[in-house]
Amino acid sequence: MLEELKKEVYEANMQLPKLRLVNFTWGNVSGIDRSKGCFVIKPSGVDYEQLQPSDLVVVNMNGDVIEGKLKPSSDTQTHLVIYKKFLKVCGIAHTHSPWAVSFSAAGKDIPVMNTTHADTFYGDIPVTRKLTKNEIENEYERNTGNVIIETFQDRNLSPDLMQGIVVRQHGPFTWGKSASDAVYNAKVLESVAEMDYHTLQLNPNSEKADKYLLDKHYLRKHGNKAYYGQK
Amino acid sequence: MLEELKKEVYEANMQLPKLRLVNFTWGNVSGIDRSKGCFVIKPSGVDYEQLQPSDLVVVNMNGDVIEGKLKPSSDTQTHLVIYKKFLKVCGIAHTHSPWAVSFSAAGKDIPVMNTTHADTFYGDIPVTRKLTKNEIENEYERNTGNVIIETFQDRNLSPDLMQGIVVRQHGPFTWGKSASDAVYNAKVLESVAEMDYHTLQLNPNSEKADKYLLDKHYLRKHGNKAYYGQK
Amino acid sequence: MLEELKKEVYEANMQLPKLRLVNFTWGNVSGIDRSKGCFVIKPSGVDYEQLQPSDLVVVNMNGDVIEGKLKPSSDTQTHLVIYKKFLKVCGIAHTHSPWAVSFSAAGKDIPVMNTTHADTFYGDIPVTRKLTKNEIENEYERNTGNVIIETFQDRNLSPDLMQGIVVRQHGPFTWGKSASDAVYNAKVLESVAEMDYHTLQLNPNSEKADKYLLDKHYLRKHGNKAYYGQK
Amino acid sequence: MLEELKKEVYEANMQLPKLRLVNFTWGNVSGIDRSKGCFVIKPSGVDYEQLQPSDLVVVNMNGDVIEGKLKPSSDTQTHLVIYKKFLKVCGIAHTHSPWAVSFSAAGKDIPVMNTTHADTFYGDIPVTRKLTKNEIENEYERNTGNVIIETFQDRNLSPDLMQGIVVRQHGPFTWGKSASDAVYNAKVLESVAEMDYHTLQLNPNSEKADKYLLDKHYLRKHGNKAYYGQK
Repeated sequence: MLEELKKEVYEANMQLPKLRLVNFTWGNVSGIDRSKGCFVIKPSGVDYEQLQPSDLVVVNMNGDVIEGKLKPSSDTQTHLVIYKKFLKVCGIAHTHSPWAVSFSAAGKDIPVMNTTHADTFYGDIPVTRKLTKNEIENEYERNTGNVIIETFQDRNLSPDLMQGIVVRQHGPFTWGKSASDAVYNAKVLESVAEMDYHTLQLNPNSEKADKYLLDKHYLRKHGNKAYYGQK
Repeated sequence: MLEELKKEVYEANMQLPKLRLVNFTWGNVSGIDRSKGCFVIKPSGVDYEQLQPSDLVVVNMNGDVIEGKLKPSSDTQTHLVIYKKFLKVCGIAHTHSPWAVSFSAAGKDIPVMNTTHADTFYGDIPVTRKLTKNEIENEYERNTGNVIIETFQDRNLSPDLMQGIVVRQHGPFTWGKSASDAVYNAKVLESVAEMDYHTLQLNPNSEKADKYLLDKHYLRKHGNKAYYGQK
Repeated sequence: MLEELKKEVYEANMQLPKLRLVNFTWGNVSGIDRSKGCFVIKPSGVDYEQLQPSDLVVVNMNGDVIEGKLKPSSDTQTHLVIYKKFLKVCGIAHTHSPWAVSFSAAGKDIPVMNTTHADTFYGDIPVTRKLTKNEIENEYERNTGNVIIETFQDRNLSPDLMQGIVVRQHGPFTWGKSASDAVYNAKVLESVAEMDYHTLQLNPNSEKADKYLLDKHYLRKHGNKAYYGQK
Repeated sequence: MLEELKKEVYEANMQLPKLRLVNFTWGNVSGIDRSKGCFVIKPSGVDYEQLQPSDLVVVNMNGDVIEGKLKPSSDTQTHLVIYKKFLKVCGIAHTHSPWAVSFSAAGKDIPVMNTTHADTFYGDIPVTRKLTKNEIENEYERNTGNVIIETFQDRNLSPDLMQGIVVRQHGPFTWGKSASDAVYNAKVLESVAEMDYHTLQLNPNSEKADKYLLDKHYLRKHGNKAYYGQK
């Protein structure tokens, strides 16, 4: 089932090493078919060089595997929580890309300081709080999803306008309208983390983008009045 | 029309990913035919992997598309302003290359601290002021061009001797005698930004190049007394 | 003899340049056959581009070459000490990878600050003390092995749980259940050194991973209760 | 004439882009035939992608071109001074590699802080003083050679033991027993500059290698008692 989606999710997964976002097996991408209520995700711990579209695993909204010979990504529960709470999300990517991990371990948001950021993320990319001992020892992956949702609620963020987050001491999750969209956002997040790091080292008092610059760039690419790109 | 120029501008655009100056579609190059009064520019949001010479768009000096099925780069108005004010410029490149963006967001000029810089840019590469709310909300791309011109006027800079600038919180624009020249300058700008960053971290009091070192290197490569290269 | 092992150790050696862990000949990998009491190691100073499986050298537990026309790696005595003291180790890798060398020269452990680290190394990756004049002038390579053992003893570390170390002012040694495992660990060590460097620059007070996060990630991948990957 | 040497110098030049030591045409390598009293050098400003062995230029010890249709490197006079003063040098490389340039512009020696450095350079790699106005305006390239020689004399350095230097605000020159040796040293210099930068950022009080560690590593690879590598 879902052969089209499997191919799409496979291609999106293969973009991770190509975009230099993963070493070894440190990442995973999924895509959901909202009408069928199930999503396709990378199997756990399989090398990208060996990955085949038929290796992908189909999981339903209870987190049960409904097709596939392999175990799904160990982060499957995190994807599930995001799909359940952020209802417009149709693809999710997770990586351990190094610049994003550095911000996550430093406990710092990735601040919106330039137009590359504003083109894709509508504001600072948030970092979550640390999970508690209990949250880590019990249902860790589900709680990772929960802390993502909590952060969005506490900060009153919209998952449509902010399509990514950095989990504290761990790494980024990004999402979008498709698996490939989510991977695109993973690369943007990594790129702006790199730029922001050097910006802050050059000038610790560097200013954030003003609201009107953020609006201009974000809305140039998103929404009714977008005029970037074709049609 | 302008088939030769289209090919040249196409080749120059394709240098951007090859020189690792862009991710995805984050950059554009144009080239002008001064005798015909129109320029050729990358279409907006088209992937470099799919770009064909025939996709390029021809624009006249009013900013109207006069040939091409696709929309021109969203930065077309910026290119137009530069072509109108800097009359010897025949090619322009724009990227979001990470070291240059870092200086732009830090609000710092890229200082002339070594001969690699002096070989190509005759002095500090300037960063513009921030655009105002009004400038961003109305005719943003044209105002981006205007603030480039303003910076050159305020600082009394010559666009012949300083073939690039960093727009605040945005990124670099470079230019030259041809599209390919502009891309060359984009790579030099990015390289010297990288070198300068590390120089300043190693020694915040690092000196700038003396005027006579700047003269020596710049004039070794440019002008009547140039002796670098063949012929 | 040991043709299978030679092939395996050859492949592991060839991973070093592929994973961008070495320049020129600056690295070596070995693998041991515990039942036969001898190990296979890269010959000294041979370029990876020229290396052939048949070039590998077989060494016994006295450090004598028992097969091979070439001289073994100059670091052979270090490998020997590790094999003799850490009895479950079946593969060893040594590189001069730049981020690891930077921590080694700064005399700093690579602190466990994120889950990428915790997935593979169960705690801070230790840096050794400096060798003394006498240790360097006499049996240097053996003493390099000895200081590794000493560090593990002094800090009460287990070579099963901590499969790597950084030798002061020199570089990393990593090990594992096989030559290829050791190379995997060399890449993880280099990656987390890079992440930690930027984390510490962003925020010198960045916290280390809590014990329960470390446990969660390490034990998710290792031991009886591991659930990452297939089977 | 010198067809063998041309081929060798050509191959050495082609290593520069392969080792990521140059962008565009920013580097040159030469090799000398001491018995014939002339050297072979890259032509000025020729792209590596177009360079052919037959493009190389033969220059005698007066600096006159004695064979070749193209102009020799603009740095030819610097090579000439080095060949005349450092009589065992048979190959020279010059690049604008970014880490080395950063140290040169910061006016800092590249300190010997790890064994990768000690394996190849017997001590801190020196940075020259700045050239004076007069030295720059008159016979600049010859004076660049002269300041290299002066630095070695002032610091009592041996060009056999220290096969490289960083010219202030400019970049590295390295040399060796052959053109290919000189390129090898250029890559080592760049690598240790990168390592040292991060070492100093991690810990500004990082210690230099002790004399006995330096001796051990340097003499393990050089001189009568070398035991690294084959034969």
